[in-house]
Amino acid sequence: MQIGIIGLGLIGGSLGLDLRSHGHYVWGLSRSQSTCEEAKSVGAVDEAGVNLTEIKSLDQTEVIFVCTPIDSIIKTIAAIAPQLKSSVIITDVGSVKSAVIDQAQTLHPRFIGGHPMAGTAFSGISAAQKNLFQGRPCVLTPNQTTDQEALKILRSLWQSVGAVMYECDPEAHDRSVAWISHLPILISAGLILACDQESNQAIAQLAQHLASSGFRDTSRVGGGNPQLGSLIAEYNQVALLDSLKAYQRVLADLIHQIEAKNWRSLEQSLTVAQQLRNLYL
Amino acid sequence: MQIGIIGLGLIGGSLGLDLRSHGHYVWGLSRSQSTCEEAKSVGAVDEAGVNLTEIKSLDQTEVIFVCTPIDSIIKTIAAIAPQLKSSVIITDVGSVKSAVIDQAQTLHPRFIGGHPMAGTAFSGISAAQKNLFQGRPCVLTPNQTTDQEALKILRSLWQSVGAVMYECDPEAHDRSVAWISHLPILISAGLILACDQESNQAIAQLAQHLASSGFRDTSRVGGGNPQLGSLIAEYNQVALLDSLKAYQRVLADLIHQIEAKNWRSLEQSLTVAQQLRNLYL
Repeated sequence: MQIGIIGLGLIGGSLGLDLRSHGHYVWGLSRSQSTCEEAKSVGAVDEAGVNLTEIKSLDQTEVIFVCTPIDSIIKTIAAIAPQLKSSVIITDVGSVKSAVIDQAQTLHPRFIGGHPMAGTAFSGISAAQKNLFQGRPCVLTPNQTTDQEALKILRSLWQSVGAVMYECDPEAHDRSVAWISHLPILISAGLILACDQESNQAIAQLAQHLASSGFRDTSRVGGGNPQLGSLIAEYNQVALLDSLKAYQRVLADLIHQIEAKNWRSLEQSLTVAQQLRNLYL
Repeated sequence: MQIGIIGLGLIGGSLGLDLRSHGHYVWGLSRSQSTCEEAKSVGAVDEAGVNLTEIKSLDQTEVIFVCTPIDSIIKTIAAIAPQLKSSVIITDVGSVKSAVIDQAQTLHPRFIGGHPMAGTAFSGISAAQKNLFQGRPCVLTPNQTTDQEALKILRSLWQSVGAVMYECDPEAHDRSVAWISHLPILISAGLILACDQESNQAIAQLAQHLASSGFRDTSRVGGGNPQLGSLIAEYNQVALLDSLKAYQRVLADLIHQIEAKNWRSLEQSLTVAQQLRNLYL
């Protein structure tokens, strides 16, 4: 199959490596010439360019993965759609779906939203790796107007790189990831910012020295890419606020148990948390 | 040196392994006969018993590490102190210090509070391992009445097993660990309990399927031992509540930025969090 990847970062680059290893022809588009060169040299693409007109195999392209940051997805589709045949399937890998789907489908009816849940602490083409999607969940978000043949092709491509497939409507996706992916970012960033509220410098510094694996893990996603965190909040505002407010209520309950010295009740809450966590792992 | 360890779990057992490998004679005390047997067979102790009267080398003991759960430390010291010479140094490894020190020093003046910041996801003598304390912080909390010679001996013992030593008063310790160790437990448990607030079962189940490394790390300490979490809250109530309330204010600020669609300000907050986190790692 002839496949295009726009945006050659961690996700786009890793996808290119895997698709090529399955015998597909892959072209890549990046804003940066040096990224194009690196993508070719690591084997993530067969050809690459900074402009769609440079892509020799464009006319034979069957599927395009838009792997840009969330705020560039619609701009990218608007720029490429007029140059593509209507039969080309376009999909994306953004972590928010509702805000993208309607506009994308208007620009190019054969668009299907996608979201592979695969990330590392690193970004960029230099972080691209084979088998990044192996065993990882990937969501496709078809709606009433989705072309079923296109859906089948996309599902099969993601399965070929090892992803475990889920399908749901865009709103269900956005609410789900608000809980388990977007809420943790804000919770975790809040921990770091709260620690900075300690007014006694000696205690603040001691805390920094004593911080161990518990702090490291709980603060990890809060210390991630600030642009990505902010974009996620912007594009998934409603679902994220719902989850944040549920979180505020739960936290207030826990604080009340501690203020009331209701240790039995607190232990019970922590026992429930311990048991529930297993459902997610 | 002749050393006693009371409580042969992860910390007590690991400490025994390391102290014996440095040539010390180590006896152990546990409520469970089978733990005593296992501690001997893995090499964590030279002799062990369920009762202090069983310990043949008790009269030669110079240092005793109380490695029981927080709520048993005072009871343990009260039980053993009358059977010990006043020259014996007693210390503990509990994660809270203020609530222990005064009573412990009253029961046995040559008591010094201690807290090695070393843990794994596992507990019990079967989780004991060599070099658990290597490169890990360990806090001693002397006060005005602390015997300086005893402090020097304890410091040297912890350094011999590789710990990086800090000293501060008990209150500074409790405030510091409230921020970086106790607050994360409540924050993290709150995440798990909040996700359970999703009323749409399909979305709740999808969230469970999609949960990835971000959720796993952020929820890890909240899914830990509920008894330990509750005891920590009980014994460090004041400092923990202070940190929880600072956290509530920080979280309310972040939520306000999202409600106000102040994405520039949110990105700035996340950038500060990203930068601050480096101070703790």
